[in-house]
Amino acid sequence: MSDDRIREYCGLFGVFGTPAAAEATYNGLYAQQHRGQESAGICTTDGRRLHNHTALGLVTDVFDRQRLDALPGHAAIGHVRYSTTGSCSAVNAQPLLIQFAQGEVAVAHNGNLVNAVALRERYERRGAIFRTSSDTEVVLHLLADPRYSESDDPLANLLPQLSGAYCFLLIYADRIEAVRDPFGLRPLCLGRMRDRAWVVASETSALDIVDAAYVRDVAPGEIVTLSDAGLSSRRFSEEGAVRPAHCIFEQVYFADPSSNVFGQNVHQFRVATGRRLAIEAPAEADLVIPVPTCAMCAAQGFAEQSGLPLGRGFTVSHYAGRSFIMPTQAQRDMEVKRKLNVIKDSVRGKRLAVIEDSVVRGTTTRGKMGALREAGAREIHLRVASPPIRSPCYFGIDFPDRRQLIATGRSVEEIRDYLGVDSLAYLSLDGMLACAREQPDQYCAACFAGRSPIQVESELDKLAMERVPTAARA
Amino acid sequence: MSDDRIREYCGLFGVFGTPAAAEATYNGLYAQQHRGQESAGICTTDGRRLHNHTALGLVTDVFDRQRLDALPGHAAIGHVRYSTTGSCSAVNAQPLLIQFAQGEVAVAHNGNLVNAVALRERYERRGAIFRTSSDTEVVLHLLADPRYSESDDPLANLLPQLSGAYCFLLIYADRIEAVRDPFGLRPLCLGRMRDRAWVVASETSALDIVDAAYVRDVAPGEIVTLSDAGLSSRRFSEEGAVRPAHCIFEQVYFADPSSNVFGQNVHQFRVATGRRLAIEAPAEADLVIPVPTCAMCAAQGFAEQSGLPLGRGFTVSHYAGRSFIMPTQAQRDMEVKRKLNVIKDSVRGKRLAVIEDSVVRGTTTRGKMGALREAGAREIHLRVASPPIRSPCYFGIDFPDRRQLIATGRSVEEIRDYLGVDSLAYLSLDGMLACAREQPDQYCAACFAGRSPIQVESELDKLAMERVPTAARA
Amino acid sequence: MSDDRIREYCGLFGVFGTPAAAEATYNGLYAQQHRGQESAGICTTDGRRLHNHTALGLVTDVFDRQRLDALPGHAAIGHVRYSTTGSCSAVNAQPLLIQFAQGEVAVAHNGNLVNAVALRERYERRGAIFRTSSDTEVVLHLLADPRYSESDDPLANLLPQLSGAYCFLLIYADRIEAVRDPFGLRPLCLGRMRDRAWVVASETSALDIVDAAYVRDVAPGEIVTLSDAGLSSRRFSEEGAVRPAHCIFEQVYFADPSSNVFGQNVHQFRVATGRRLAIEAPAEADLVIPVPTCAMCAAQGFAEQSGLPLGRGFTVSHYAGRSFIMPTQAQRDMEVKRKLNVIKDSVRGKRLAVIEDSVVRGTTTRGKMGALREAGAREIHLRVASPPIRSPCYFGIDFPDRRQLIATGRSVEEIRDYLGVDSLAYLSLDGMLACAREQPDQYCAACFAGRSPIQVESELDKLAMERVPTAARA
Amino acid sequence: MSDDRIREYCGLFGVFGTPAAAEATYNGLYAQQHRGQESAGICTTDGRRLHNHTALGLVTDVFDRQRLDALPGHAAIGHVRYSTTGSCSAVNAQPLLIQFAQGEVAVAHNGNLVNAVALRERYERRGAIFRTSSDTEVVLHLLADPRYSESDDPLANLLPQLSGAYCFLLIYADRIEAVRDPFGLRPLCLGRMRDRAWVVASETSALDIVDAAYVRDVAPGEIVTLSDAGLSSRRFSEEGAVRPAHCIFEQVYFADPSSNVFGQNVHQFRVATGRRLAIEAPAEADLVIPVPTCAMCAAQGFAEQSGLPLGRGFTVSHYAGRSFIMPTQAQRDMEVKRKLNVIKDSVRGKRLAVIEDSVVRGTTTRGKMGALREAGAREIHLRVASPPIRSPCYFGIDFPDRRQLIATGRSVEEIRDYLGVDSLAYLSLDGMLACAREQPDQYCAACFAGRSPIQVESELDKLAMERVPTAARA
Repeated sequence: MSDDRIREYCGLFGVFGTPAAAEATYNGLYAQQHRGQESAGICTTDGRRLHNHTALGLVTDVFDRQRLDALPGHAAIGHVRYSTTGSCSAVNAQPLLIQFAQGEVAVAHNGNLVNAVALRERYERRGAIFRTSSDTEVVLHLLADPRYSESDDPLANLLPQLSGAYCFLLIYADRIEAVRDPFGLRPLCLGRMRDRAWVVASETSALDIVDAAYVRDVAPGEIVTLSDAGLSSRRFSEEGAVRPAHCIFEQVYFADPSSNVFGQNVHQFRVATGRRLAIEAPAEADLVIPVPTCAMCAAQGFAEQSGLPLGRGFTVSHYAGRSFIMPTQAQRDMEVKRKLNVIKDSVRGKRLAVIEDSVVRGTTTRGKMGALREAGAREIHLRVASPPIRSPCYFGIDFPDRRQLIATGRSVEEIRDYLGVDSLAYLSLDGMLACAREQPDQYCAACFAGRSPIQVESELDKLAMERVPTAARA
Repeated sequence: MSDDRIREYCGLFGVFGTPAAAEATYNGLYAQQHRGQESAGICTTDGRRLHNHTALGLVTDVFDRQRLDALPGHAAIGHVRYSTTGSCSAVNAQPLLIQFAQGEVAVAHNGNLVNAVALRERYERRGAIFRTSSDTEVVLHLLADPRYSESDDPLANLLPQLSGAYCFLLIYADRIEAVRDPFGLRPLCLGRMRDRAWVVASETSALDIVDAAYVRDVAPGEIVTLSDAGLSSRRFSEEGAVRPAHCIFEQVYFADPSSNVFGQNVHQFRVATGRRLAIEAPAEADLVIPVPTCAMCAAQGFAEQSGLPLGRGFTVSHYAGRSFIMPTQAQRDMEVKRKLNVIKDSVRGKRLAVIEDSVVRGTTTRGKMGALREAGAREIHLRVASPPIRSPCYFGIDFPDRRQLIATGRSVEEIRDYLGVDSLAYLSLDGMLACAREQPDQYCAACFAGRSPIQVESELDKLAMERVPTAARA
Repeated sequence: MSDDRIREYCGLFGVFGTPAAAEATYNGLYAQQHRGQESAGICTTDGRRLHNHTALGLVTDVFDRQRLDALPGHAAIGHVRYSTTGSCSAVNAQPLLIQFAQGEVAVAHNGNLVNAVALRERYERRGAIFRTSSDTEVVLHLLADPRYSESDDPLANLLPQLSGAYCFLLIYADRIEAVRDPFGLRPLCLGRMRDRAWVVASETSALDIVDAAYVRDVAPGEIVTLSDAGLSSRRFSEEGAVRPAHCIFEQVYFADPSSNVFGQNVHQFRVATGRRLAIEAPAEADLVIPVPTCAMCAAQGFAEQSGLPLGRGFTVSHYAGRSFIMPTQAQRDMEVKRKLNVIKDSVRGKRLAVIEDSVVRGTTTRGKMGALREAGAREIHLRVASPPIRSPCYFGIDFPDRRQLIATGRSVEEIRDYLGVDSLAYLSLDGMLACAREQPDQYCAACFAGRSPIQVESELDKLAMERVPTAARA
Repeated sequence: MSDDRIREYCGLFGVFGTPAAAEATYNGLYAQQHRGQESAGICTTDGRRLHNHTALGLVTDVFDRQRLDALPGHAAIGHVRYSTTGSCSAVNAQPLLIQFAQGEVAVAHNGNLVNAVALRERYERRGAIFRTSSDTEVVLHLLADPRYSESDDPLANLLPQLSGAYCFLLIYADRIEAVRDPFGLRPLCLGRMRDRAWVVASETSALDIVDAAYVRDVAPGEIVTLSDAGLSSRRFSEEGAVRPAHCIFEQVYFADPSSNVFGQNVHQFRVATGRRLAIEAPAEADLVIPVPTCAMCAAQGFAEQSGLPLGRGFTVSHYAGRSFIMPTQAQRDMEVKRKLNVIKDSVRGKRLAVIEDSVVRGTTTRGKMGALREAGAREIHLRVASPPIRSPCYFGIDFPDRRQLIATGRSVEEIRDYLGVDSLAYLSLDGMLACAREQPDQYCAACFAGRSPIQVESELDKLAMERVPTAARA
């Protein structure tokens, strides 16, 4: 994907029963850093008390040896987070730790609740106070609400109040609870370390880094408890068991190619989309090149299927994105330039099949196509390994609003013209879903298809929580 | 005072109606940095929304040009805070900003609530969640409680629920509310800047630095509102109007000598105690020397009254207290050494009247007396310009518990022996109170006299809020 | 290349005649960050005086807006540097700025002088003092030596004293001098910005980022002067004009694939080596995978030639190498793990042709092959797109000494056994050189072939300058 | 002294024969931090090699546990430095470490060489290169000059080349050499720690902090060697033995009151000047107040002699000088305000005898006098405990040039008028010198008297070394 502003909200990791739980969590978050670069946090339990540290920044910025050593205990949960610029604030960093009548609990959340504003208003009317602009905070109020907290199973009883996409990790002094929403929109998997400690993570790449074997996914509508008694499980909803709605965009863009999500390897899904794309929309070209770095898998499939040679058209700076902020447009263009260098001799005089995983706003893609043209590419045939994005996402993916999406109200020909390429084709919706392991109706493809698996009352915007006044910063 | 661990909790500053409110607040906090070195924060309003920034550290560490520029608005409140090591945590830094049914509010607090645990438990039973270990957070829950928030005057109605010492500054989008407890335990004064902006501060030194003229003190039991409509006032309690209980320790130790608190200049109070001390407990000495830097005023009075020459026995390092932490005892002793150098030639062979403002644990005082002896002082007559401290304080001063106070269970002779001085005398309680401007019964001298002006149910400890599990850290 | 400790010493950039020379240099260094990550520096001239800033760290760490603004002037030189751990010291960061009888000059150097110790001793005997352990410092002494400094062309007269590989940029108040050694071991090219400013850089990727058009290489034995009078050129040696000795390792490993060095595109050279490797050492395989990220070009060539599909076996963390230091071996293994994730589903059950650009120590390669095996690869056929490295480099490449090179005293079969692969083949020396644009005898391939183009008196070691006592640190 | 820009260049500390030499040096520098706040450095020897660390900042900023641990060895020298803004540069931080024909040496210098430019030019003509703008660097060239380095006693032979004020500490692998110039302009004393290690320091306060007993001063024209063989001494000059020229300004302003310099306690000297001032220029006043913090000793003497009460008119912020830089004049005025608060009630309606140690530019003094007046002082009688400063200093004190001195070309009456006080008197030159322990002709009072003890060829300026182009920055 060319538009770097589009990033998912979060990655989760939890471990119970290993001596250096904070360090394992550090590694597990590191392997999922691509899921969120804005803040990071780890909360451990020593069996009696919780120890939490969160801050803005990458995992490697937020934690060092000393910080990890100050987080004792045999169990931990961790979180990496991305959010929009407006709400980039230390108070929103997770895990969120609270004290309430039952003691302490900390929560980490991946996803987005579509009824958070309604729930928040309900609690505010009763006198609740809020310190963040995160939808996660309402879950804390539900947890503390005597209606649930004094029930036989507070968590199972309150979860049906939530609507939207969510995976939660909750850590108490004596246990971790891992929850996945009834539709299974976001991934969450279980693994086991060599020392028998249980691990829970958004992606299997986090299991690999701690040498944990994959056991199974947390099921939609399931609560898994990790404690000294081992693993136990219960259902709080049967809804999604019938028909889940896995986010297809995890496969298309977010997850690491080495990960399995929803029971399928991400790399293989993407290779398949590339193959399919070569069948649906072949290109007369001398060379297949991916737009780095995400489209490499799809380009591999496209090349394999088409029999065209696969090559490199760009090199990527390993140091991109770390430059200080330059305020003028000329300087922002420079920043884009710093990230990708065209290999001029590789593309000069060539007819190129350029493979992209997805196109959101189109502005960056346009710049890259221009750079190829300037380097002497003879023809540019852009092939996108997913359908046009036509709708914002209400379930945790930070697409811009409808007006900024290039595919809104534009024909493919108009988009082609805007991007300045000789031909343009997108993979069909059916074609994309055919690459997935489950039946097409088991996925949420609302951003492509416009049909949401969950009822969303109104055109929500991701800063809705912030229109209620907030600006909280620590 | 020789025991550097004893520090008050907080200093407050607020301003309404000046263009660069954050900068004025920065200066106002700077002038009150002696009231709290652990964290600092400023919350501004631009008329619509609040903007808050808080962090651990000195005012000059927490804020720079860029941070101040990110706090727009014509009104602001600020806070500096000291707390015990155990609860040194960024989540406790104030102002505390929340959203609730009525919008946004941020609160800064100086003092200590003696019924905070009871209130907290009451709200927790109803489902409230807490994120800090600060007693201030219960006030936020009271503010949001519909019982008060939906009443005609939420603030005036909820304040009678609070027991203890408190000054509050609350900032809303459209106003600042300044509150002082019914007994007026902590100081709070009003001033006016040259541009007619209203200022409220713990000490008048903060008025001076922003060129504000002193107007009057906020009265015990009064709420003052600063808004576009100017200043308005109302009473929420008449209790203290009859007999206030001003903390005499503000005069003895905390406040800056250039400040006026409770209507009296601190320097002059201290000079008066020194004079009185010279009458009550004269010393046969060649030279009067203060223990730097707080006892200088009292030493001046002692010298004036006694006719003895006033001189220096120590120099103070301006760089003390900034060294990295050295874990061994030998290294801690070195730290004390770094702070004060004895001027050997000044004290050698002399009979010294050494003036101290107060003695808490006695360990540091003992070290200093030893250094004077080692430098060749012939006789050391220690004179303390306040009575022995016999009780902990429940109202915001961080004395150690009773067992650590040197005066607990020890006669003056036993203390003299411990400190290794030739003679020791404390100023009498009556003598000290006679130096104050108001009648003796207008002051709280519970730490000296053991009688508290407010009913305290049990032997509270300042970490009571933390025994409820917390460990919250950001 | 798998052994991340092997890095070249430096990258150079200079510009004359553009308003924001420091900023252009920042960008030019950024594009060459892969040539040195240890220190960075920029020295500008405002026409009268030089302004220098150097520090340890990446370009983006060392410079920010404020730092660049403090470097005024229309001309600048810059330097990025890698050196061995032992001499990682701020005093060695370049450009090195001195004052001497003729005024000020700053020098930036890429390469290695093989007679630096001898020259240093000569000057020390005369009373010279040294502050760094860098071979570059002797050049400063030559510059100031009246024997040269008072001659008609100091630079041209002193350069014949130097033996080894070098490109120098020297900045004076009024000009930049760019020098390339007689054998042209290291690359140096000239370009021109749109505003007609002259640019000089190690690699053409640095021209691209400042929108400069490539003009030509600085010739071996040439001095180019950039000044208000434009560009002028003179020769100080004709030696290399007959037979240059371009470092083939620049093509094999160091330079960015988007760059042209020695008149040839790096990517295309590497693709050609991959093709040649497929002819010399074909593999029965299902899939060709590169070891990221450097072997991607060679893998492309190998796949093209062999007709085998090209795919991905690993994903790379964009955040690798930024973690805090972990002292134990277990923790260092973790660091390797963090960098590369195997895409298990991509390699499981497959016969793999794994393409590597070069193998130095072999330890990291062995780890990666083990990871592929563990992920279920059926067969691993490792193909290395360059010959075995058998000799250290005396000209600026930081290979370990002979004993640590895996190819020293080991047959290919023994190396295969050590790496744990099913088959292993290296590209032949002739095969590699056949891929280069110039005749084979125009390149230095001493690390592969053992024959040095320049006489090196003894087995030098790169820390020779440090055996003379140094430890200089700022 | 009211003008905070006037600070001496340096403080020195050295120790030989103690296990934790770096830590002792850290403490010794800490106790002399008032002698230089711009940079700090420590160089140790482990018997074989030197280990140096220097940086801009306070001792506590530059060093932490880790840094000290990286400086092994049983001997060390350290340096704190102030220099003018123009040459505030990391490359100038001392000790300066070099390698030369004889090995390694590091040098720390307190003072100023008046013939440094001439020496520098001499060496530059021979081909020497310079990297700093410090006069100390010429000493390094002399040390390496074969004319001296190959002589029987290099140090003793080269020192007569130097003209000016200097104390040097030189550390070699096996010894420390401590040198004091023939006139003894700057102080340097010897002490002995309890473990028998030898200590050398600028001020005795540094001996006190490491529990070293004062032994004696290093004599003018003496070289003291500290090594495994203990202490040995030799003379390189007999010049000053006849008539030294101790800098009286060390007594008046620089040294810590707890120190002894030139055999006399600083506090007692200052008390004596205050007494003398009261005799020479009595004042009809109600209260004697010092300008904090330096004039406290003189004020004590003035009060004792006059019989007037001694009190406080100002409080000092312990946090002053740490605020971020504010560029406008209004903001700089605010910075002054932050440093000193007038105790209004202490001065209102009073006739004040205000004691100042010295007045340089007069601008800050004027501001303070205005603040007293504004606070309601009835009369202000300013008494300065030293004569008018009429000449810049060529020997290491950073006075502004002649035109900026308030006493240049102004009568006392004109100065009084400028400062806005009711009366003004300076202590006489003879009066001041009468307070010193040695005969008047044993002191350099050139800044007051205009007569220099050493021939200074021309009106030097302290940036002379910088007019030779420099701008060296690391």
